[in-house]
Amino acid sequence: MIDKVGLTREAFPYQVAVPGRFADDDMLGHANNVVYHTYIQEVVVRFLIGPVAFEWRKSPILTYAAETLCRFHAPISYPEPIEGRLMIERLGTSSVTYGIGLFVEGRDVPAASGHFVHVFVDRETEKPVPIPADIRSVFEAYRPPEAGTGG
Amino acid sequence: MIDKVGLTREAFPYQVAVPGRFADDDMLGHANNVVYHTYIQEVVVRFLIGPVAFEWRKSPILTYAAETLCRFHAPISYPEPIEGRLMIERLGTSSVTYGIGLFVEGRDVPAASGHFVHVFVDRETEKPVPIPADIRSVFEAYRPPEAGTGG
Amino acid sequence: MIDKVGLTREAFPYQVAVPGRFADDDMLGHANNVVYHTYIQEVVVRFLIGPVAFEWRKSPILTYAAETLCRFHAPISYPEPIEGRLMIERLGTSSVTYGIGLFVEGRDVPAASGHFVHVFVDRETEKPVPIPADIRSVFEAYRPPEAGTGG
Amino acid sequence: MIDKVGLTREAFPYQVAVPGRFADDDMLGHANNVVYHTYIQEVVVRFLIGPVAFEWRKSPILTYAAETLCRFHAPISYPEPIEGRLMIERLGTSSVTYGIGLFVEGRDVPAASGHFVHVFVDRETEKPVPIPADIRSVFEAYRPPEAGTGG
Repeated sequence: MIDKVGLTREAFPYQVAVPGRFADDDMLGHANNVVYHTYIQEVVVRFLIGPVAFEWRKSPILTYAAETLCRFHAPISYPEPIEGRLMIERLGTSSVTYGIGLFVEGRDVPAASGHFVHVFVDRETEKPVPIPADIRSVFEAYRPPEAGTGG
Repeated sequence: MIDKVGLTREAFPYQVAVPGRFADDDMLGHANNVVYHTYIQEVVVRFLIGPVAFEWRKSPILTYAAETLCRFHAPISYPEPIEGRLMIERLGTSSVTYGIGLFVEGRDVPAASGHFVHVFVDRETEKPVPIPADIRSVFEAYRPPEAGTGG
Repeated sequence: MIDKVGLTREAFPYQVAVPGRFADDDMLGHANNVVYHTYIQEVVVRFLIGPVAFEWRKSPILTYAAETLCRFHAPISYPEPIEGRLMIERLGTSSVTYGIGLFVEGRDVPAASGHFVHVFVDRETEKPVPIPADIRSVFEAYRPPEAGTGG
Repeated sequence: MIDKVGLTREAFPYQVAVPGRFADDDMLGHANNVVYHTYIQEVVVRFLIGPVAFEWRKSPILTYAAETLCRFHAPISYPEPIEGRLMIERLGTSSVTYGIGLFVEGRDVPAASGHFVHVFVDRETEKPVPIPADIRSVFEAYRPPEAGTGG
């Protein structure tokens, strides 16, 4: 696992805006810690819909979440803009680990960091299958800038 | 529509516990107003799974939400127990209006009241169909105590 | 209450994008009906933060939700863009009713419509207070195009 | 970190029911992976409200989430009952790691496992403080059965 607490935006090749919602905040006026996982999921899904062009509604292959982690470094409060950042942190035969940073204005390092592990499975059998070549090639393109750190 | 703000528990024949969650509360320490609709939905679904025994995962008939309303009378704060109450407020050919009261301890009248309208549709055509007779007979049994008030 | 099912975008003077989230969809692949209320809340809050410039975190006046209604006309499915529209549907001494339309591409009329009623209360006493003049004047500016229909 | 994938219920001294909600399920008919973190949060909060008797609304000490992790082993589908289980996995000076298992009927091992790390901070300064002695003694009582595995 890559420790992402001190990484700047440039370490994550993919970026997408993740709009907060009023309903995200808890009684302390910050996003509830569960909501951060919604933000992380949203970054991953936008990445799959966007650059990966994954047809998740009709593909014979599904992605199953295997593990999700979030570390909280600074509070996020609605309505401040949230910038989601993603790197391919680890790329296996059937699984991929997306490294995630959630950034807010005025901070060079993430307000929260974490990862999300997807396993590619056959829609019918639900057994792991190799990541299709076209998807894998996109994943390779979103490795962190310094190759070899993913591990 | 039946005004339910002053109704007591007895006016609603069906009851079910609706456990709150820590994540339901907003920055004022009360359940966010959107969450009340989750509570209302939960009362309706538990009623359908329970007394109605509706096989919603495989039935050839689906229920589509047509309208949901909530009126807020008093705050609800986690972790106080919430008691959901339901009456069949209006029963049409293809649609049903569930009248809902959300009760908390120490209050004879609802902390929130509202309704939820379901239209029964064919799973394939998505066109309205008459409510099946077996379901209708259950609905009839959950009219409010004084017949004729459902209007 | 204004029936908004057949109204076009122009009937609602305020507009804001309401990004959906993957987590919004239910097992039918459409936004869960509860989530529509999150969209409606988001339109209202963005309106208050934006044109109204309401300082909800520190104002001596709070807005309490009194009633929320949603009518479902057509499904909304992630990730299609959602356009939130708002009109001041009714303006009382202490309360305001926001008329809401949720629009998707390719439809001239709302996929969902509804309203949201706010009561302005004193933060300490929690008693209704008149809507402050500066806020009222903004509300007046967001009446539907043809004056006199609000009512 | 303790690997909890193969642990049975007995390894987790605290248990609490975690009722699912219809709205938890996604388009595959299983609880959305984000929702598992809501379940985990709920187990932790119920533990704090219950055995720990933590007065989180008025205590001079707050608990900040530092890290949350979930591993998904088997799907959970509404309305099947979910049993939340908790152990004190690691106990530091200012922080505690709750080890969590989410169990469903018919499975001896967790449908999901994970952990949640709380740091105790001063409400005013937001700086870490030692876990109060009375809370620590409760935590000690919820260590996993075989002492020394928490580490």
